[in-house]
Parts: sequence; structure tokens; C-alpha cells
Amino acid sequence: MDDTYFMNMALGLAERGTGFTSPNPVVGAVVVRDGRVVGQGFHAAAGKPHAEVVAIDDAGELARGADLYVTLEPCNHTGRTPPCTRKICDAGIARVVVATIDSNPHVAGGGIQYLESRGIAVTVGVCEAEAKKQIEWFAKYVTTGRPFVTVKCAMTLDGRIATRTGDSKWVTGEAARAFVHRMRHASDAILVGVGTANADNPRLTARVEGMRTRDPMRIVLDTKLSIREDAAMFDLDSSAETLIVVGPGHDKKKRDRLKGKARFFDAALAIGRIDMAGLMDGLGKMGITSLLIEGGGQVIGAAFAAGIVDKVCFFYAPKILGGDDGVPVCAGAGQEQMKNALPVRNVSVTRFDDDILIEGYVS
Amino acid sequence: MDDTYFMNMALGLAERGTGFTSPNPVVGAVVVRDGRVVGQGFHAAAGKPHAEVVAIDDAGELARGADLYVTLEPCNHTGRTPPCTRKICDAGIARVVVATIDSNPHVAGGGIQYLESRGIAVTVGVCEAEAKKQIEWFAKYVTTGRPFVTVKCAMTLDGRIATRTGDSKWVTGEAARAFVHRMRHASDAILVGVGTANADNPRLTARVEGMRTRDPMRIVLDTKLSIREDAAMFDLDSSAETLIVVGPGHDKKKRDRLKGKARFFDAALAIGRIDMAGLMDGLGKMGITSLLIEGGGQVIGAAFAAGIVDKVCFFYAPKILGGDDGVPVCAGAGQEQMKNALPVRNVSVTRFDDDILIEGYVS
Repeated sequence: MDDTYFMNMALGLAERGTGFTSPNPVVGAVVVRDGRVVGQGFHAAAGKPHAEVVAIDDAGELARGADLYVTLEPCNHTGRTPPCTRKICDAGIARVVVATIDSNPHVAGGGIQYLESRGIAVTVGVCEAEAKKQIEWFAKYVTTGRPFVTVKCAMTLDGRIATRTGDSKWVTGEAARAFVHRMRHASDAILVGVGTANADNPRLTARVEGMRTRDPMRIVLDTKLSIREDAAMFDLDSSAETLIVVGPGHDKKKRDRLKGKARFFDAALAIGRIDMAGLMDGLGKMGITSLLIEGGGQVIGAAFAAGIVDKVCFFYAPKILGGDDGVPVCAGAGQEQMKNALPVRNVSVTRFDDDILIEGYVS
Repeated sequence: MDDTYFMNMALGLAERGTGFTSPNPVVGAVVVRDGRVVGQGFHAAAGKPHAEVVAIDDAGELARGADLYVTLEPCNHTGRTPPCTRKICDAGIARVVVATIDSNPHVAGGGIQYLESRGIAVTVGVCEAEAKKQIEWFAKYVTTGRPFVTVKCAMTLDGRIATRTGDSKWVTGEAARAFVHRMRHASDAILVGVGTANADNPRLTARVEGMRTRDPMRIVLDTKLSIREDAAMFDLDSSAETLIVVGPGHDKKKRDRLKGKARFFDAALAIGRIDMAGLMDGLGKMGITSLLIEGGGQVIGAAFAAGIVDKVCFFYAPKILGGDDGVPVCAGAGQEQMKNALPVRNVSVTRFDDDILIEGYVS
């Protein structure tokens, strides 16, 4: 039972907040005394108590002299809740083990300094890589003001997301599709192009069997406002809004008709198409910390071209469509030289039955 | 130390014959007495002694009363060498453990029956899946008379084998490219289209550092005989031939000029292009048991369309080319419905540094 063991437990607790904490990060905490877990907690939702507070309250008097494992540096400022550092001192915690410091420029390092100044032993960096990955979207958002952008795509082994007729039901199997619903649940917003919206008429909700989920905001890139008025996403029992991103000169009467069904975002154009970088700034201001781009090829191509993508999650289904007429991953002009292809770093591979997920980072 | 342990040793020995045994399979054998290995052997090349014989000779008198582990059912017929079953009896082997029976219709089961009739205990099926995989090309060849066909392809994560200008240097990294040279060494022949031959001017030899290799026969699909006369593959220090597959009506004068540099195969056409199925029959008759198709897209598309492919080895490099104008894996018309895509079975994933190999079977 070493630090890694208890920190992994804290990381597991943190996961339970996934999808509910935005704009806060997910955080987990465990209080350990004489090698035994005496308290545990996680941040359940923005406005709810922080993980450390929950864990310390759970431990009660046993917290005195105990070790606290927490996945993120405790906050040292008064936000919606009082600072956790004071709670830790008041509870008599003897040692604090932190997985990673806070990326938030207003917090970074301050919590640890405060604890050490009060005579509490602090260890930093246990399971740091896992902890950083768990809050990668939060780190991006608090340092740039833009959402962390993931491009998700499901293709055949020969790189086709649909047939020439647009048929894409289904590329991957059930396990992979269920995982995508978990990704939606974990994202503040999901973005598709109007082509996908009109062709597939998706609901874009997060549906995971046996799990309470939160729907992401549905965003449709629709320069000319050509979305079908009977779109399924307008007629949902969902707590999340639908946001239509329009360009100048769209049909204002149609916009009026859609009032009450969707919210609108007036975007600038860049070379005749939605300015993706500007849109990211706008979404950030709306509090969107993480964005899942689900396609189609036009939107994915535009996202790569605009350099706004942080991560790719490409699913490869064990089948070959054949031919060169299926729908490719990206639309638009590609690089002329292979050496100029966009590198993908920290690649990892996960299997979902016979489907294969390749994940990596492009920022 | 159980049967699996010693059979894995035999499988490892068998590997050492890779590339040299065609049209025979690779086979390994171990003689074990009182839990100790007292003899080992592998089939080193067609015409050389079989693995069992090498292992028994290596054991000498210690073979009497010992167990023999062999990756393939011992032969019971006189080919270029006398039957191994007799050798096993004469040596006094007490028990024979076989990984898989022989797929050869003239052999299947006969060896085991003979051994049992002579009072030798026989166990079949230890490490059967691994053993079958090791000789998958042999099983295809002896049962159909056609080579086992593998399509190898290296692409970006978004499914492009080259940029719109044809640049493909390099898609994958060194480790993956080194593995491809091992695949070439293990293949009787390698096939490319004339487009690839003229654009990349490849040598198509098997070059593995620190390893003696055998070059595969180089085959170029060239209906109209438009290959460049200064092709690198005509000017090699290689034991393997170059075979140009031509259609009716090709330039006979050019063919005369290329005499001595290449051998020719006159193929029938199917809808204006080389009849791939007929070509496979022809290659089989020439003793080609395994064929590696390395592209480009025209040839790969034709191979899938003709239904001659047994296995795919697709390498995915951690990069995104972007756009829809790069060279795709296949050329031609693809399926209209996703449900009609060619299923790939028994998928496995291997990493070569940051490149990812997805292998699977389509036959």
C-alpha cells in the first residue's frame, strides 16, 4: 500500500464526477490513517463541495494526523466555496499527497505553499500523468479560455466514414458506440456540420445504459442556416441547448421560426466559412470547456485546417469498404508533402471488441 | 515445464526457417527426456532434412524413450526425403506431441495414424492456433494451389498512403519499415502495380540488418508494358527474378528489349484489366506459395475486388495528412452500403514505436 495505490483510488473517485463538474475539473480525494482508508470524496458538481472537503468530512475526527491524497492541488482561494487549504489545516491533516498542481494561473502552486507554511508535509507528482490526462480539458480551458477540442471519428480500415451514398450505419460495433456516448457525457458540447445534421438527423444526446448522464450542448455549424426544421435535436427532452452557428446573410425569417428551438451564434467567416478559431473563443466565453467534434468531413477538415484540435479519437472498424469513392475523414485540400502531415503524439490504442480506438494529441 | 513450454520452443525454432522453406512449411522440433531438452531442429530449406529428423539426430541415443515435440504432423510419405514417421519409430521415441495436423490433403492425419499403430502415444493440438498461423500460407497453397495473399499498406491515421503529389516518403517510421522487409523475406513474391514501380522506382528486395535474407520474386502488374526501362529492379544483385505481368497487345519490341532483365507472364484480362484470379492460378503453378501485395491503390483495389486477398497488414502512422485529395488505400468503386463492407476477422494489433499495425483475415 504505497502512495500510488491510494492515489489511484483517488483518481477512480474523481472519475465519478465526469460530466458534472464543468467548468471545474474532476477531483478525487482519500484520507488514509495507519494504512487504512478512513474517508473518501469527489467533486460531484460545480457549486458542490470540493473533493478534499468531502473526504475530510467523511473521515471526521479520524482525519487528525492522517494523510490526504488528492488528485489536484487544493485550492487556496475563496471561490464558490471557502479555500480547501484552510479546511485541511483545521482538520489536522499531517501530510498531503498531490498528483498534479493546478494549471489555473490564479491557483498554481499557491495551495502547496500555504500548506507547507503551516507545517504540513506535501508530496507532489504521484500518478501525475494520469491526473493530468484526467483534467486535460480543464488545463486547456483555464490557460487559453478556449475549449479542449477532441475530434471523434469512426472509419473502416481503409479510412472511410461512410459509403459514397452517405451510408454510415454502422461503421463500429456496439461497444465502441457506447463509449462515444460516454465521451458525449464527458463533454460540454458536441459539434457537427449541417450536412451531418440533415443527412443523419442525429439526436446528439448522451445515452448510457444504467448511468445518469448529462447531455452536451448541441452545436451545428450552419453558415447559411440550411438545417431541416424538423431536426430531431429540436424536439428532445434534454436539459442541454441546441446552438446553431450561422454566418452573415443567413435566412432571418427561418431564424425567427426556429426561436425557442435553438439558440444562435453569429460567427465571422474566414474565406467564406465559419471562422473556427473565433468560434472557439466565443464558446469559451459561453463557458464551454470541452468540445467533441463528431463530423462530418467538412467540419473535421476545417477544424484541422484552423489548428484548433487538441486530441483525436479515431475508431477503426474491422472492415474494408474498398474503392476510392467512400466519404473520407477530412474534406478540403491536404498537405502536399508527407513530412508536413500533422504529427499525432502520445498515441494509445484501446480495443472495443473488434473495433480499435487510436487516440493521440495534436496540440 | 509443460507441453506448451516445449511446443513454444519448437515454434521458435520453426521461425528460423522463415523465408527459406518454400514450398515446404516451416517446422520446428524438440526432443525432451526427463524434462530436459536433448535435441532440437528446424526445417532449414526445401530439400534439407525435416525438423524431426534434425532434432532426433541431435538427440542421438538420448532420443530412445524421449518425447518429441513437433509443430506440424510428421510426414508419412516419401517426398524428397524418407518419411519422418519411420525415423521416429526407429529412434524409439515414446511420445509425440503435435501442434497441428498437416493441411496437405495427401498427408492429413496419416502420420498420426501410423505412429499410433506402432504403439507411440500421440497428443495433438498443443499451441494449435500459433502453429496454424505460422504456416497459414502453406495451408492455403496446398489446399487451393494458389498463393496466400497479404495486402500490406502504410497510411496516415486519416487513411492516406501518399499525398496528392504522390509523396509517400515516409509514412511509417524505421521499425515498421524494417518489419516490412522481414515480411518480404518471408514471402515468395511481392507484387506492385506499374504506377508504383514507375513513381517510386523501388528495389523490392528484402534488406534486414544482420540477417541473411532471401529476396522475393518481384512481380509488376503492367497490362500495357509501360514500365520504365531503367527501373532499379532490373539492375539488382538479387537471386530473385522480376516478373512482368502483361496483357494482350503490349509492346512486343519493348518486351524484346527487356529480355534478360525480366521474365514475362501473359495474363488474361477481365474488364480491361489483369484477371487477378487467373494470375493467382498461374503464380501457384510457378510454385509461388505466398504473395505480398504492396500497392498502390489500383492494385490493392483490384485485389479486393477479385476476392483473392487472405490477409491485410495495415500500418497506421501517427499523423494526419488532412484534406480529401491524398492517395487512398484502394482505387475503383467501393461498396454502396456499409453493411456490404468486407469483414476483417481475427484482428490483432501490434505497435512499432508510434506506428500501429492492424492485421486481420478477409478470407
